[in-house]
Amino acid sequence: MTMHDHIVKSYDDEQRRLLDETLRMGEMAASQLEAALDVVQRRDDKAAERIIANDEAIDALEQEISHDVMKLALRGPMARDLREILAAIRIASDIERVGDYAANVAKRSTALNLAPPLPHVAGLHALGTLAVAQLRDVLAAYRDNDVELAQRVRARDAEIDTAYTGLFRELLTYMMEDARSITACTHLLFMAKNIERIGDHATNIAENVWFLVKGEQPLPPREKRDDTNTASPV
Amino acid sequence: MTMHDHIVKSYDDEQRRLLDETLRMGEMAASQLEAALDVVQRRDDKAAERIIANDEAIDALEQEISHDVMKLALRGPMARDLREILAAIRIASDIERVGDYAANVAKRSTALNLAPPLPHVAGLHALGTLAVAQLRDVLAAYRDNDVELAQRVRARDAEIDTAYTGLFRELLTYMMEDARSITACTHLLFMAKNIERIGDHATNIAENVWFLVKGEQPLPPREKRDDTNTASPV
Repeated sequence: MTMHDHIVKSYDDEQRRLLDETLRMGEMAASQLEAALDVVQRRDDKAAERIIANDEAIDALEQEISHDVMKLALRGPMARDLREILAAIRIASDIERVGDYAANVAKRSTALNLAPPLPHVAGLHALGTLAVAQLRDVLAAYRDNDVELAQRVRARDAEIDTAYTGLFRELLTYMMEDARSITACTHLLFMAKNIERIGDHATNIAENVWFLVKGEQPLPPREKRDDTNTASPV
Repeated sequence: MTMHDHIVKSYDDEQRRLLDETLRMGEMAASQLEAALDVVQRRDDKAAERIIANDEAIDALEQEISHDVMKLALRGPMARDLREILAAIRIASDIERVGDYAANVAKRSTALNLAPPLPHVAGLHALGTLAVAQLRDVLAAYRDNDVELAQRVRARDAEIDTAYTGLFRELLTYMMEDARSITACTHLLFMAKNIERIGDHATNIAENVWFLVKGEQPLPPREKRDDTNTASPV
């Protein structure tokens, strides 16, 4: 084995490590979201606090990834290798936000537990389950360089947007019917918005998988449907 | 002038260009937020649509910055140069989000204009003005490598959080008093949340200025106050 082989081998090892770390970070965020959805159902404050505390591990992993990216970039990588590095740092940043949103869902669940249980929690759970599936799929697309799967994740984001819009309108009517539900429904509105944003981050990751595999080739167009921003006041 | 000087000069030129682009992108986002706050006051749908359309220019600039970062990183930069590159790509990503939030404030203003004017718009404007100042200051800190200014921006984020919490509670009481205001107040809640998030992005940028100047040295601790997540239901 020559010196050159040794250096090349070690670069590949570190790049592999970077991918593994990013995938691990992504799985942590997906699990955090699942756990957050679960504590909303179970009204379990103790478990919610654990989820909030766990977010620090995701943040620490992002720091580690940034550090590894620095080390790799200092070696003056080639174009494809550089795309790996750039994709990893962008994907890690999206995952970090997903972790924040999941922790926020858990945090707001403890606020909800101060009031009697609400019936509309089921809609939130369904929305969140879509987001978890999107996350897991886009991480698999990243792991396998699977552009087709990444494109399906992008296309399916419209489903999350539609489910979010439905839940949003439902919550508005509850608030109008019963003023005492306003504070709790406001928390649910923000929790739903957090999950809708997690869907957007899954889409960002899908677009980075495209960039990783296809380089500067332009992305195919995609439909985007979230009309709650312009929902006409009732 | 030797060949070596020529290469070094040109690297510096491109690095300077990267900083200029990122600062320009930041100023565009700050102006977009200012314009969005203004259209909320003036109830000007046409101007709101222009702001929404302008967001594309910010997104295009982020693409350009990613491209320049690729070109620079391919040259195998040294540690400090690499920190410049990493800081630029992270800061550009934060600015891109700020642009999205500003455009969303403009978008929601057109929904508000479908109903009679609300008195609580003043509080939103005050909150937004704080965020614009934070953005301008943190961009100056980035331009001048001014760690002290960046630290002041981080410390002042607590003011935005406090103003946001106050506005949030105020809006909740309006919703409870008059069910007809619920849809409009929900838009205002999300607009306020968007601005609070812009404050968080200014803080992220401040932390990247620290990383740029100080490297891996740990950040000093900071207070964070946004207690609306756990606001007890009234």
